[in-house]
Amino acid sequence: MPALSPEELYLFDTTGFLVVPGVFGPSEVTGLRAELDRLHPVDPGFANTRRYDDLPTTSELFAKLGRDERIVGRVREVVNQPLRVLEGYALRRGRDSVLYLHGGNSELLDLDGGTVGRDLSITHTYHDGKLFCPYVKALVYLSDIRSPEDGSFCYIQGSHKANYPLLRHRAERGERASLIDEGFPTLTDVFVGAGDLLILNEALMHGTRRKRTPGDRLLAAFGYGPTYMADWSEWDGETGDLRGTGYVDHDVEEDFVR
Amino acid sequence: MPALSPEELYLFDTTGFLVVPGVFGPSEVTGLRAELDRLHPVDPGFANTRRYDDLPTTSELFAKLGRDERIVGRVREVVNQPLRVLEGYALRRGRDSVLYLHGGNSELLDLDGGTVGRDLSITHTYHDGKLFCPYVKALVYLSDIRSPEDGSFCYIQGSHKANYPLLRHRAERGERASLIDEGFPTLTDVFVGAGDLLILNEALMHGTRRKRTPGDRLLAAFGYGPTYMADWSEWDGETGDLRGTGYVDHDVEEDFVR
Amino acid sequence: MPALSPEELYLFDTTGFLVVPGVFGPSEVTGLRAELDRLHPVDPGFANTRRYDDLPTTSELFAKLGRDERIVGRVREVVNQPLRVLEGYALRRGRDSVLYLHGGNSELLDLDGGTVGRDLSITHTYHDGKLFCPYVKALVYLSDIRSPEDGSFCYIQGSHKANYPLLRHRAERGERASLIDEGFPTLTDVFVGAGDLLILNEALMHGTRRKRTPGDRLLAAFGYGPTYMADWSEWDGETGDLRGTGYVDHDVEEDFVR
Amino acid sequence: MPALSPEELYLFDTTGFLVVPGVFGPSEVTGLRAELDRLHPVDPGFANTRRYDDLPTTSELFAKLGRDERIVGRVREVVNQPLRVLEGYALRRGRDSVLYLHGGNSELLDLDGGTVGRDLSITHTYHDGKLFCPYVKALVYLSDIRSPEDGSFCYIQGSHKANYPLLRHRAERGERASLIDEGFPTLTDVFVGAGDLLILNEALMHGTRRKRTPGDRLLAAFGYGPTYMADWSEWDGETGDLRGTGYVDHDVEEDFVR
Repeated sequence: MPALSPEELYLFDTTGFLVVPGVFGPSEVTGLRAELDRLHPVDPGFANTRRYDDLPTTSELFAKLGRDERIVGRVREVVNQPLRVLEGYALRRGRDSVLYLHGGNSELLDLDGGTVGRDLSITHTYHDGKLFCPYVKALVYLSDIRSPEDGSFCYIQGSHKANYPLLRHRAERGERASLIDEGFPTLTDVFVGAGDLLILNEALMHGTRRKRTPGDRLLAAFGYGPTYMADWSEWDGETGDLRGTGYVDHDVEEDFVR
Repeated sequence: MPALSPEELYLFDTTGFLVVPGVFGPSEVTGLRAELDRLHPVDPGFANTRRYDDLPTTSELFAKLGRDERIVGRVREVVNQPLRVLEGYALRRGRDSVLYLHGGNSELLDLDGGTVGRDLSITHTYHDGKLFCPYVKALVYLSDIRSPEDGSFCYIQGSHKANYPLLRHRAERGERASLIDEGFPTLTDVFVGAGDLLILNEALMHGTRRKRTPGDRLLAAFGYGPTYMADWSEWDGETGDLRGTGYVDHDVEEDFVR
Repeated sequence: MPALSPEELYLFDTTGFLVVPGVFGPSEVTGLRAELDRLHPVDPGFANTRRYDDLPTTSELFAKLGRDERIVGRVREVVNQPLRVLEGYALRRGRDSVLYLHGGNSELLDLDGGTVGRDLSITHTYHDGKLFCPYVKALVYLSDIRSPEDGSFCYIQGSHKANYPLLRHRAERGERASLIDEGFPTLTDVFVGAGDLLILNEALMHGTRRKRTPGDRLLAAFGYGPTYMADWSEWDGETGDLRGTGYVDHDVEEDFVR
Repeated sequence: MPALSPEELYLFDTTGFLVVPGVFGPSEVTGLRAELDRLHPVDPGFANTRRYDDLPTTSELFAKLGRDERIVGRVREVVNQPLRVLEGYALRRGRDSVLYLHGGNSELLDLDGGTVGRDLSITHTYHDGKLFCPYVKALVYLSDIRSPEDGSFCYIQGSHKANYPLLRHRAERGERASLIDEGFPTLTDVFVGAGDLLILNEALMHGTRRKRTPGDRLLAAFGYGPTYMADWSEWDGETGDLRGTGYVDHDVEEDFVR
């Protein structure tokens, strides 16, 4: 039996994500939170944010979570290639933390030879009834997020299939505020509870609202892709010997917002 | 100035490959042949074929060749992503060697969850004037190949953009001969001289004819792709921890020919 | 100067429609309403709905509206082909009128030779910075529609680029209610005022809510497409001589709702 | 049973055409030739070429041919929409006649608002196992054409799926010769016999060689498309009332060759 119903597949295809409520029970959530309390986070350079890196290596509990059939079974049906885990981490965020918009199907990337509007690591397609998404994230929420003030996940409608870039035009006009603060007609919030699973096509332009409420906002995230993809690491440019690996950084709000 | 003229780009796009004659001069060809004579080949399991593995590591001369602007400048214009070398090797082939057809845009791949008609590692696209080919090979010929009997490169016209698979139907009908021997209306030969460069979209279904003439048939090959792609290695199935890397093996003639 | 800003084009591309507020002033709206009061509507077979057919022929004022640069200038930038008017009509709707969902990029169409998931008359594409939408509607609102109870335009997010059908699965499960009444996670309302213009990609699955408020709901609609497209008429099947023209009727809610 | 085998469909998809030998027997060919001898051709303005226009109206025999299941059954499987006949004609060509290259998936079309690289009347796609070609021609050969000197059908490989234009660059460089005379690496000839059927995706860039042999070269041609498409007529520009119909004339060799 497929892990996703026809309507779930329709929603993932048309919106670029899918929320499955209550995949993980309260005791599992408690266990995962306790495990993170034992681990040592790093400072990722974002305000009021702690990151637990490389969970598949540092925690057997999270390594198992990354292979959990409730996640992987669903992810398989939107990747449809032999699968591997590209990254696994958790984020603990406090008040005033924010995650600016990133992703988008056609945001611009400057290369030596010119500017391109494709990042192949997120370029997805469809063939004969199946989606082929090369980079899919599974977000396991360990907190309730019930309002924008809780720092909700937000996204630009249809951006995972956009034919045009959105951010460069704005930057060239001199605009330096994030759409998260300034608004955009199709910027939309998603509210979830602890234990919910969000499956995300990384081609979707998404971020999170500025958290205004007290308490922490905790989630674990796993990235999945075909077996030919390297572990995720940020790309700092080609190496001289053309042997270095990493992921490109097309336009994201971080590049422009001040 | 672009490395490829509009007509070269048109040819690469419409046929899936491009031959650039005489990129490497006679003394360079001699030097590369001499270098291979010093290296130790392995037996790749194909009849009358010796393979020199991992040239970027084993030979400084070939490492430089893999970064040579005459190759990389052209490859960049059909990958259009930050680039890396995925593999580099040479093949020395004698009489009766052959390379069966492989590649094809829609050949089938069996997964646990069903059969799919896409291999994302070769799925290419186009956007705003630029091609995006994730796996491009550069073949540097070190021998003249002037006839099918010399073991010429051959390909199925248009297979790099095929919407349908070709091989599975034949196999299911019980056919066990290679199209290279049996013929196909659009199987086409390409003849080259030593020093020629062939740039290849790996989505093209291609192989080589059975070599019938004496002497060796020598070429060096480099694979290129975006920086997020892992070094090439044949995929043996997902590992239990979902951390293993490798490239998928959709239907190729090797699977069916007896 | 382009008629659509980069952000308007981004919105039309990603959502399948665009609202331009206040294109027509109050006196123009009054004039168009008065013109309709002089014309004779027909009964289109929908409850509490009157239709004014073939406006480009029956009314010089509406013929001019169909060629008005404020509409056509915008439509041209999403059709990008030599243009013609395919239809022009107005709808006057009273209480309890409704328009069930229709459109959708991949809804099913039964032919003698099998079932297909494409209706080429609405199949749109993109190439080199330009959208190519073969069927675009311009809705000129002559009433304020401020709530679902006013019978607002509503649509399924992302349905203009859906890879899957939505309606057939539901029908096969025996569901006979409209999503307009039953709800769907991505069914979204659009509110407008008299004088607003809505440009619509007909591939979007859309309809209107059940009108619950008193008063009429009046709009004029023009369909545009490339010059090779025939005047709109509903398709009743191929004619025996294969010379008849008409537009296909893939799955729409009308076929299933009782 | 499908009219096209998997291999025929693969060939049509990958090359843009399909030859089916001997569909019409010698007596049928004789009958069709005799019918044309009774009809009155017009001068289409091409050297040594006579055209029999509008055959579905002027000849009951050709009207039946246009509905013949041996043609229509095959055409249906590459259009996959409710079908109509868009045009039907015959060409009788003598020595020195030629048909320059036309078609191509991305040749340029100048509009008031800019230049576009799509002609939607030939823009084809694929979805869930089926091709969707909006303009398909069936050529019924009534003569043997065994060499380029007989004026063979010729085409540019892969041009039906080209992402780039071919002709405009050449014209801008001042080249005024046809590729038919000048050659192109992927210009390819097709030889046929009387009674053969050639099914053609009009997106393929094709033409015929200059006829050098004596005798006539006779064929009947039928154009097919979805029922929403108008009868074929050459487009002379939009009419002022935006009601005129016709087919666009993107770049073809006729525009440039002198």
